[in-house]
Amino acid sequence: MLLIRDLAQVATPAGRAAPLRGEALGDIDLVEDAFVLCDGDTITAVGRMRDLPSLDGDVLEVDGRGQCAVPGLVDCHTHAAFAGDRVDEFSLRASGAGYEELHARGGGILSTVRATRAAGEDGLRAAVERHRGWMLRHGTTTFESKSGYGLDRDIELASLRAIRDAGGVPTWLGAHAVPPELDDADAYIDFALADVLPDAARIAEAADVFLERGAFDAGQARRYLTACRDAGLVLRLHGDQFTEQGAIALAIELGARSVDHLEATGDEGIRALAASEVTAVVLPASALFLGRPMPPARALVDAGAAVALATDFNPGSAFCESLPLCCSLAATQLRLSPVEALSACTVNAAHVLGRADRIGRLAPGHRADVVLVGATDWRHLAYHLGGDVVSRVIVGGVP
Amino acid sequence: MLLIRDLAQVATPAGRAAPLRGEALGDIDLVEDAFVLCDGDTITAVGRMRDLPSLDGDVLEVDGRGQCAVPGLVDCHTHAAFAGDRVDEFSLRASGAGYEELHARGGGILSTVRATRAAGEDGLRAAVERHRGWMLRHGTTTFESKSGYGLDRDIELASLRAIRDAGGVPTWLGAHAVPPELDDADAYIDFALADVLPDAARIAEAADVFLERGAFDAGQARRYLTACRDAGLVLRLHGDQFTEQGAIALAIELGARSVDHLEATGDEGIRALAASEVTAVVLPASALFLGRPMPPARALVDAGAAVALATDFNPGSAFCESLPLCCSLAATQLRLSPVEALSACTVNAAHVLGRADRIGRLAPGHRADVVLVGATDWRHLAYHLGGDVVSRVIVGGVP
Repeated sequence: MLLIRDLAQVATPAGRAAPLRGEALGDIDLVEDAFVLCDGDTITAVGRMRDLPSLDGDVLEVDGRGQCAVPGLVDCHTHAAFAGDRVDEFSLRASGAGYEELHARGGGILSTVRATRAAGEDGLRAAVERHRGWMLRHGTTTFESKSGYGLDRDIELASLRAIRDAGGVPTWLGAHAVPPELDDADAYIDFALADVLPDAARIAEAADVFLERGAFDAGQARRYLTACRDAGLVLRLHGDQFTEQGAIALAIELGARSVDHLEATGDEGIRALAASEVTAVVLPASALFLGRPMPPARALVDAGAAVALATDFNPGSAFCESLPLCCSLAATQLRLSPVEALSACTVNAAHVLGRADRIGRLAPGHRADVVLVGATDWRHLAYHLGGDVVSRVIVGGVP
Repeated sequence: MLLIRDLAQVATPAGRAAPLRGEALGDIDLVEDAFVLCDGDTITAVGRMRDLPSLDGDVLEVDGRGQCAVPGLVDCHTHAAFAGDRVDEFSLRASGAGYEELHARGGGILSTVRATRAAGEDGLRAAVERHRGWMLRHGTTTFESKSGYGLDRDIELASLRAIRDAGGVPTWLGAHAVPPELDDADAYIDFALADVLPDAARIAEAADVFLERGAFDAGQARRYLTACRDAGLVLRLHGDQFTEQGAIALAIELGARSVDHLEATGDEGIRALAASEVTAVVLPASALFLGRPMPPARALVDAGAAVALATDFNPGSAFCESLPLCCSLAATQLRLSPVEALSACTVNAAHVLGRADRIGRLAPGHRADVVLVGATDWRHLAYHLGGDVVSRVIVGGVP
């Protein structure tokens, strides 16, 4: 057994429901002077120290003094399967270069496709492991990652295997961009569905598409997603990042699990999402990184939509693996409270990944994924902007 | 001797001038496959590995493979001498509470004054040491800190001693707010100048004032600063944070070293600063933390002003000690290039602290303060948003 004892606070989203909507997103169970008890990879009890039962057998103790426990964080939207970086492009953009200039200089998604193909499967596995380590140090105990920098059969499948073998939840982002060897989106989708989907569907849990002007249009996205759904995959969409192109309506029509980004979403989209079962995944680090408007997270929560918070970790538009930083951005840029931010990157993110029964809360029966925050008030997770706020991470009961 | 060897890059602001203005802010000396050699607390050589001389005597080697060296970062604007936190206020603001509501609930600067007075000198010393440790982990090898949470004789002087004894550069921010036991700004300035300044001037290097609606007006600031100048202190001002109240004109009139914040500065202020010897200190973490407009850093640089970059670390408006994060904000929010951001928080910040002859560059004769960036391109310092980008910090030649 593992006993995390003398914690200043244990903070966890309240109740058993998932996803949390509206005011429920701001409900928290807070226990002070508390312990978390785990048996193997499962939490067996959470309570006040004065109610700690006597324990028989081997007990490994972790000293929680001066710290708080929150659920292991869940990053439900990353692009961690890439090689290389885009620091040149970043520097040019900082100096005022526009997208067209960056593209002309060889930047953009396709520059990462070149680097990722060149890295091969071994390089890709090493990269995913490295990125997983970065996430873990910032408290992410469950991560999703998309493929999408192969755009051919071998590297797409290698990406999905690398993500799965690193313990991640693989999403096949077959429709991320049109690869350089093809210049027609429809021809690429024909190829992807015929030659990649059958094997991708055996590794991935979900499929995703970049529905945006210059990427794939709503008709192409519908064709791609319908085939993926028929192959048994959960559906997700990149939508409304720069322009509204019908992603929300398509997500609802096809019963997608989530639509992600939403920086350009207007009132009609907010109302439609709130009335649907589709979770809105907001990615404030991406908006910050690109200097773009923030998504309307406050309005989505107030309207009753299920909102999750993720990093969008990727080399081009969000080189950021830190969910604590995203919690800070949620509080300062999205007008979500620290409690809402925590719920959005734990239980609601777990819902997006179909795992809310086992992760996202500190509660008996849940997996023993615990983040210790190095302060006596857990809200330092959001308050301490860019700080080293994660003092310890426990994954599956292993301290 | 200390030899840092096999570095992918050594990056340092070019030349010997300080402060750097205009295009010179973007000039960098970049050496690849490089070493840094130190003797005691001083850098003696920087060069390419192939030019490494044979070394006699004891040489301690640091393996720089896969890393880059940049100058130790210089944080020229912090408020690190405080106790307690303001996480309640932060959470209320995230939920939409305005300043008046926060003040009514006991928030604001005066809540930190209460906590700091209650901590006493020992608590304050412990807090400054803790904050110094946080800064150091993020690569800050020289920090300035203001007092300003005592607002009485004992705690103001204790703050300055704690900052000095932690190795910081102390600035007397006597005019931060009017303490609760007085309700008149002029009466408080009378007290501060008569009862605190004589001793403060023996510890502090500079004096600072919060010139803002609701704090101190230009007449009060002039009276305070003039007396501080007569006592031998360098002058600095918090100006144009929320509104333009004449801070830039006053800074120029009095020959101040810097005016800091400038979120509300318009074209006239930019032109005036550019034509002056006053350095503009921009604090993007503060603007982000409060959800406020960013300062016009790009326009200031383009106009020819000397611009420095700092955190504004404090519990109320910028609970952020990370200069790397500020470099990311500079690149994504202020449209400064990574080179400009680095120069702004090294050589130009050192100029604000009157130390540009010894710190802020990796050059022979400079202090051996070196930050190793854990990537093969030093620009990851700005590119890796919220990442653990600092792999090692060497202070005064001690690895």
